[in-house]
Amino acid sequence: MAENYIVLKYRDGVRTITINRPEKKNAISLSMYQTISNVLNEDAANDKVVVTILTGSGSYFTSGNDLKGSLSQEIPVKDSLNVVKTMIDAFINYPKLLIAVVNGPAIGIGATMAALCDIVYATNKAVFDTPFVKLGLCAEAASSFTFPHALGRSKASEVLLLNYKLSAQEAYQFGFISNIIPHSSLNKFINNLHKHGTIPVKSLTRNKQLIMANYKPVLYESINREMEQLFECMASEEFSNAILKFLDKKSKL
Amino acid sequence: MAENYIVLKYRDGVRTITINRPEKKNAISLSMYQTISNVLNEDAANDKVVVTILTGSGSYFTSGNDLKGSLSQEIPVKDSLNVVKTMIDAFINYPKLLIAVVNGPAIGIGATMAALCDIVYATNKAVFDTPFVKLGLCAEAASSFTFPHALGRSKASEVLLLNYKLSAQEAYQFGFISNIIPHSSLNKFINNLHKHGTIPVKSLTRNKQLIMANYKPVLYESINREMEQLFECMASEEFSNAILKFLDKKSKL
Amino acid sequence: MAENYIVLKYRDGVRTITINRPEKKNAISLSMYQTISNVLNEDAANDKVVVTILTGSGSYFTSGNDLKGSLSQEIPVKDSLNVVKTMIDAFINYPKLLIAVVNGPAIGIGATMAALCDIVYATNKAVFDTPFVKLGLCAEAASSFTFPHALGRSKASEVLLLNYKLSAQEAYQFGFISNIIPHSSLNKFINNLHKHGTIPVKSLTRNKQLIMANYKPVLYESINREMEQLFECMASEEFSNAILKFLDKKSKL
Repeated sequence: MAENYIVLKYRDGVRTITINRPEKKNAISLSMYQTISNVLNEDAANDKVVVTILTGSGSYFTSGNDLKGSLSQEIPVKDSLNVVKTMIDAFINYPKLLIAVVNGPAIGIGATMAALCDIVYATNKAVFDTPFVKLGLCAEAASSFTFPHALGRSKASEVLLLNYKLSAQEAYQFGFISNIIPHSSLNKFINNLHKHGTIPVKSLTRNKQLIMANYKPVLYESINREMEQLFECMASEEFSNAILKFLDKKSKL
Repeated sequence: MAENYIVLKYRDGVRTITINRPEKKNAISLSMYQTISNVLNEDAANDKVVVTILTGSGSYFTSGNDLKGSLSQEIPVKDSLNVVKTMIDAFINYPKLLIAVVNGPAIGIGATMAALCDIVYATNKAVFDTPFVKLGLCAEAASSFTFPHALGRSKASEVLLLNYKLSAQEAYQFGFISNIIPHSSLNKFINNLHKHGTIPVKSLTRNKQLIMANYKPVLYESINREMEQLFECMASEEFSNAILKFLDKKSKL
Repeated sequence: MAENYIVLKYRDGVRTITINRPEKKNAISLSMYQTISNVLNEDAANDKVVVTILTGSGSYFTSGNDLKGSLSQEIPVKDSLNVVKTMIDAFINYPKLLIAVVNGPAIGIGATMAALCDIVYATNKAVFDTPFVKLGLCAEAASSFTFPHALGRSKASEVLLLNYKLSAQEAYQFGFISNIIPHSSLNKFINNLHKHGTIPVKSLTRNKQLIMANYKPVLYESINREMEQLFECMASEEFSNAILKFLDKKSKL
């Protein structure tokens, strides 16, 4: 069951969502996307939840989309994309504080969904890795906007177009993350975030709404363009070839 | 008189506005806002003023809005907000160079008005501190745009939503300020800025106008949303409770 | 011939455009602008070119517009501006990867055209220097947007309005460039960039298009405002005086 792959906790106003599928490097399957969407949407309306922390268990934050799983399920591409799109919507519209604590490599959707959170912290073992061009895919989850906005056009182009792997150190240097946490104090750090569970939630929501008012239109414009391209990508030969090569390589590991 | 709290100097093309109410940590009263607005608006039309420097005397830049003073005057909230709004307008529309030299903690409106200046310098004793959520208030002076624009969304959300106190070091690291000045050479630094009083003013105005053309629409969109929310805030119970607690704490110091 | 001043190479999917007029500090004449425009526009339609590198030979990237040469040719100002505008268009609309490798001082259009590239690398000898205000000129090539976007408003205002010379170190610190290259390994670095000549070009184009969709409208709005102002500038007395002083100083060197 997907529910086992997504571990949910709640304490003192703080929800923790942990991606927990270490044997697959925390790859996210369609049902895992759905679980995350559902939690965020339910918590949005639950006054007891003030802060949501998203993290991963084991050495990865997430290795991204579970491509192999998705493809093997013979679900139409459009339906798969819609499941991901629903989660992206849940991220953007979550009215309370959403914090990503990136515990290790964040690949593909892992990197792009972190950029949709209000605050991103990462340990020194984190890497942001978006192999879209290589796989014949394209920027998703509004990363065609969020990456240049956070990193500047030059570093963002390196990351998105050349698959430059952004270390925690450079992610901090370029303003993508708020702080680097020593990996050894990860649990202590997450525990400590629970103090924010008591901040006045109406006031928080009001202020976040003001920040988001400037972002939402451009996030959705970007996403609409990306989804259109993504759909074309997945029908293209460049993608089929790249993906076959990729899955072949993986199966040999 | 408020005029004593705002010290004005002029030399060699450079206006200096010093917030000078150290016994109240340079808290800004309504009449101080008005004095600043008036100077900026008069200087805007005065060809002899090329550069305006805004700084504070003593250990604070400003501790922000003089809430206690404002509330005790029994002026309707809407009128108080309009006085602040008039100053914000004067900042945004000042056509020449506006430089903030942040000599110490910049709290609330202190931090947000610095972000409306063309250039921000700060000494190592500066801290940017926006306790809006805690006080049941909300982002003002377009900070719901200027902070994410300058700091990136992650660090800005930490500052605006979690009341994370931004040190001069991190303000520089995240591109919020242009440089850190050793506190001991503050006067020398301000003196040295007077060399800019001779730059060709028409050319300066023309170039600043080009920069501002991209900012003005989004600054005003943000301010309009903020003012609407701020007005609601100040009528809310969350605000009344927070403010009573805050004033009570202060009166015990 | 201008062609000698612009050296073109092609190897393994990578075009290199080298500004090569070291005796004039790589100042760009009208015919050099035209050569660069033509190459970019031809390469845009040439599937064999995946990456374009723009660099300079000798100690300068470019000292900017060849003002003396342009003025001596008695070409109407509007026509000169159109030649520059055509190159700016070629930069913005180039669909593949455009990388600036800034080998030394980048003055005026040198700095602003670097900011129009996808990725900017610079050696430790690079400086970004925009003396617009001093010369009675104004921000060009969308720098009234690209500089504040990359550097933040404060540092950008220092650079654009106060002619603060941005070192490679600070350009990296503020996110304007992706990396600093030791000057001694410049050739090795450029050689190494040739590995990107094999990235899938359709996928690259698609992803770059997504990034540019957010930039193009604001780039063109900025350029239109700048061109209007630039035309006024060049008819102004402030410009005539500044330029006579500037050329006089140069002729005495």
